Amino acid sequence: MKSLINDLLHTLPYPEVRPEGLYEPIEYVLAMGGKRLRPVLLLLAYRLYRDDIARATAAAVAIETYHNHTLLHDDLMDHADMRRGMPTVHCKWDANTAVLSGDAMLIMAFRKLSEVACSRRAAVMETFAATAQQICEGQQYDVNFERRSDVTEAEYIEMIRLKTAVLLGCAVKIGALIADASAADCDTLYRFAERIGLAFQFQDDYLDTYGDPATFGKKIGGDILCGKKTYLVVATMQRSTPEEQATLMALLADTTLPAAEKISRVRALYDAKGIPEVCRTAIAQYYDAAKAILADLSVDATPLWAYAESLLGRAQ
Amino acid sequence: MKSLINDLLHTLPYPEVRPEGLYEPIEYVLAMGGKRLRPVLLLLAYRLYRDDIARATAAAVAIETYHNHTLLHDDLMDHADMRRGMPTVHCKWDANTAVLSGDAMLIMAFRKLSEVACSRRAAVMETFAATAQQICEGQQYDVNFERRSDVTEAEYIEMIRLKTAVLLGCAVKIGALIADASAADCDTLYRFAERIGLAFQFQDDYLDTYGDPATFGKKIGGDILCGKKTYLVVATMQRSTPEEQATLMALLADTTLPAAEKISRVRALYDAKGIPEVCRTAIAQYYDAAKAILADLSVDATPLWAYAESLLGRAQ
Repeated sequence: MKSLINDLLHTLPYPEVRPEGLYEPIEYVLAMGGKRLRPVLLLLAYRLYRDDIARATAAAVAIETYHNHTLLHDDLMDHADMRRGMPTVHCKWDANTAVLSGDAMLIMAFRKLSEVACSRRAAVMETFAATAQQICEGQQYDVNFERRSDVTEAEYIEMIRLKTAVLLGCAVKIGALIADASAADCDTLYRFAERIGLAFQFQDDYLDTYGDPATFGKKIGGDILCGKKTYLVVATMQRSTPEEQATLMALLADTTLPAAEKISRVRALYDAKGIPEVCRTAIAQYYDAAKAILADLSVDATPLWAYAESLLGRAQ
Repeated sequence: MKSLINDLLHTLPYPEVRPEGLYEPIEYVLAMGGKRLRPVLLLLAYRLYRDDIARATAAAVAIETYHNHTLLHDDLMDHADMRRGMPTVHCKWDANTAVLSGDAMLIMAFRKLSEVACSRRAAVMETFAATAQQICEGQQYDVNFERRSDVTEAEYIEMIRLKTAVLLGCAVKIGALIADASAADCDTLYRFAERIGLAFQFQDDYLDTYGDPATFGKKIGGDILCGKKTYLVVATMQRSTPEEQATLMALLADTTLPAAEKISRVRALYDAKGIPEVCRTAIAQYYDAAKAILADLSVDATPLWAYAESLLGRAQ
């Protein structure tokens, strides 16, 4: 299904005559690969109801294009130099190219979505646009939180929900809408994928510090080294005295310590508050909640659940 | 009608709980005012066919929000500090705010447009999205042309068409689509407004250098002082020898000359090639072409034409 999506991405509305510099970065970003998680979820949700996948492919392309638009603009705002081992657009080209090509991707996503031929096109469009707006809000909360040291776990979870989980909910809901699933099923699938999204994000945060270097794929400790305010930081802060909080903040901001020492000292603070167990419990709760929600569905959700399990590394 | 549009802009889909920093810049930009040219054109086109304006207001809000999104991101890319006498978003806040709030405006425009309730919603959405993509292409051509000294008049006109004229065409076409006008009338109105858009842009370029300071509203010579590659520059380059071209390019790039001297020396080069007359002829041709196209319309277009005339300063 991933290779189908990679092929489909070439069906974006590129013009025949094109200005140099606008579309190359878009093709570059979309060729970087990745799991294609969102369009796969959309198509899997659709296939719970119908086999004729052609009706859902425009929406699958739209959601992956949109997602890559957010990566492009987020990398620009975060001054991130690399993504998936390749230079980001504002580094390979420049900041203005990142702004304009990112805008064009967002527009092309909406344009592709408007190709969807189904009786619920208006609901599809509204779900997509409302989600995209929530994701801007999530990104803004993320920016605001980087400047605060008193972010609560509840605030952090809401930020993650907006920034990443709602797009997974949107993906399966749109798949179900296009497949003419019942309103109840559309809602059930949305809530399922939202929880899966939260589980993914918590697992990402956890594995970045506590993962097995042999299987994680990235270097362990990257979040600590760049002082990123992950769930681990927020959970530790909430369980710390003002003095301990100041120590953690200073440590995360420190750019002079050797990498291994910075990682092990921050990890010791997490360990002292039992954060690894807190994380594992939170992940398991979202996982279990997602599974329980799926039981409400009117159809057999085995293929969708098997995919979610495989991504969470829980498959047997 | 302008004040109606100013009121309607408050109907954008703002959330009840909102992150600090995302929506303030949007409200700031939309409160800056301006002629509200695009939504006025949309509503005037609609009213050629129907009186119940409520059906078209969501689209009017969408197109003005979209236009202000382009201003916000263009000002960021152009490093423009001021617009309508007020600091631009990336100056009043910062570059990241300009990127993210601009993205949210684009999304809110699409979301507002998806509220449009009419049988041709798909055509409205496709017209809008295709136009927005063309405008990105126009902006990219503009960026590319700033680095070139061999831009032809035809290339320049195509850039201006994409960057500014197609949005006026889109505005009237969407108004007509929502009003259930015939396909022929939708097309006629589009072509009319595209030519009006070209006339406006040529007039802007002309008046910036040759306008009457008492009525122009901005200081005369601004484009020359910042070395902007306007139609006047392109038309002069095409009529010049390589030596004359080098003189003009060097003069426009010069930042040491006193303002009045730089303006008068560049203007002398334009005058030597008869550029004022070239401009006036081009404006008149687009104006006449627009008027001729409008004669093909199946309904009386007097209110629309009167508005276009008033903006071009041609009304009696």
